[in-house]
Amino acid sequence: MTTKAQERRQKLRMDLIDTAERTIAAQGLASLTARGLAKEVGCALGAIYNVFPDLDTLVVSVNSRTLTAIDRTMVQSVAPPSGKFEAAQEFMVGLALAYARFAQENTNLWSCLFEAGMQSSEPQPEWHQDEHLRLFERIVEGLRPIAPQAPDDRLWMLARALFSAVHGIVQLGIQERFVAVPESELEEQITIVVRSVTRGIRKEFD
Amino acid sequence: MTTKAQERRQKLRMDLIDTAERTIAAQGLASLTARGLAKEVGCALGAIYNVFPDLDTLVVSVNSRTLTAIDRTMVQSVAPPSGKFEAAQEFMVGLALAYARFAQENTNLWSCLFEAGMQSSEPQPEWHQDEHLRLFERIVEGLRPIAPQAPDDRLWMLARALFSAVHGIVQLGIQERFVAVPESELEEQITIVVRSVTRGIRKEFD
Repeated sequence: MTTKAQERRQKLRMDLIDTAERTIAAQGLASLTARGLAKEVGCALGAIYNVFPDLDTLVVSVNSRTLTAIDRTMVQSVAPPSGKFEAAQEFMVGLALAYARFAQENTNLWSCLFEAGMQSSEPQPEWHQDEHLRLFERIVEGLRPIAPQAPDDRLWMLARALFSAVHGIVQLGIQERFVAVPESELEEQITIVVRSVTRGIRKEFD
Repeated sequence: MTTKAQERRQKLRMDLIDTAERTIAAQGLASLTARGLAKEVGCALGAIYNVFPDLDTLVVSVNSRTLTAIDRTMVQSVAPPSGKFEAAQEFMVGLALAYARFAQENTNLWSCLFEAGMQSSEPQPEWHQDEHLRLFERIVEGLRPIAPQAPDDRLWMLARALFSAVHGIVQLGIQERFVAVPESELEEQITIVVRSVTRGIRKEFD
């Protein structure tokens, strides 16, 4: 393959990810079609499949960007934890609230993280699974000063529990169908749950 | 309308709900079509719309049964709370674990509660919203002995937070895509979160 052809492929790849990201952000994953993408990008329908094996793989690239954006938001919006329990606890509350805000402001991209590839039985590619792990690593590092004696596998378990609990509050809060949550209440619910669980973790390893 | 015609309509109504419930339980909401239903029940396609204004309304009837079944499971699987904090706390853990088990054993029917009507902008009918409230009432009554001094609106808020947190753990645990949760860990995650949050609630009103 010539360098020129490689460059063209690389540009098409970026154009497709950019356009898919815009489409999902504006209208949700269900609106993403190969035909619509090809039209928007100005390429032949078949050209998409020279760059991506299928749409699911393209969506993984969009989700990868979303995870990076979530990570960036979480890192920027809170100060790193000091050694004190209360500071570490508030750091965790801050992480959770940053996650909630990202979901509120980027609802379609955020939903796509949990919808993508759900129909297919293929596991997500390993490099993308590693990106999920990095998000949990962030939570584990936040929990460490709360329970420095806790073994790593316990901290990972607690990180999964805490993430899922906060995720549930955010999701049902945004969905507003099953649990009618006033918007002002969402942050309070998250704060209560994160403070309680972090206190419980400290108590366990006291 | 003659009584006979009323009876026929009533029987068709029940047949349609039974069949829709079986289809959703076996294959999920996405597999439910009016054409498939008519074929299975043995009625004309148009006959469905003599009994239900649309499929969404039929699905609400299925969801109504699911909520009743969840309520029954929650009530049967735990003893009513005594006055002691620890007993009340374990009652709440029991409610949450019963909810998780129901979701694990009836995943498609349970998912349907949160998927149904998401595309439509119509609110769910009020009688069905009341059924959601009844589920939360169950949680509020469980929380009351933990914080007898708490005003009702605070208890409802805490019930919403607790339900959503447990729901998130169950959902991501069952989905197993974003958070890879070993099955044996699900109950432990729920127990930790419910114990921590109930302890937090007691502390708040001590």
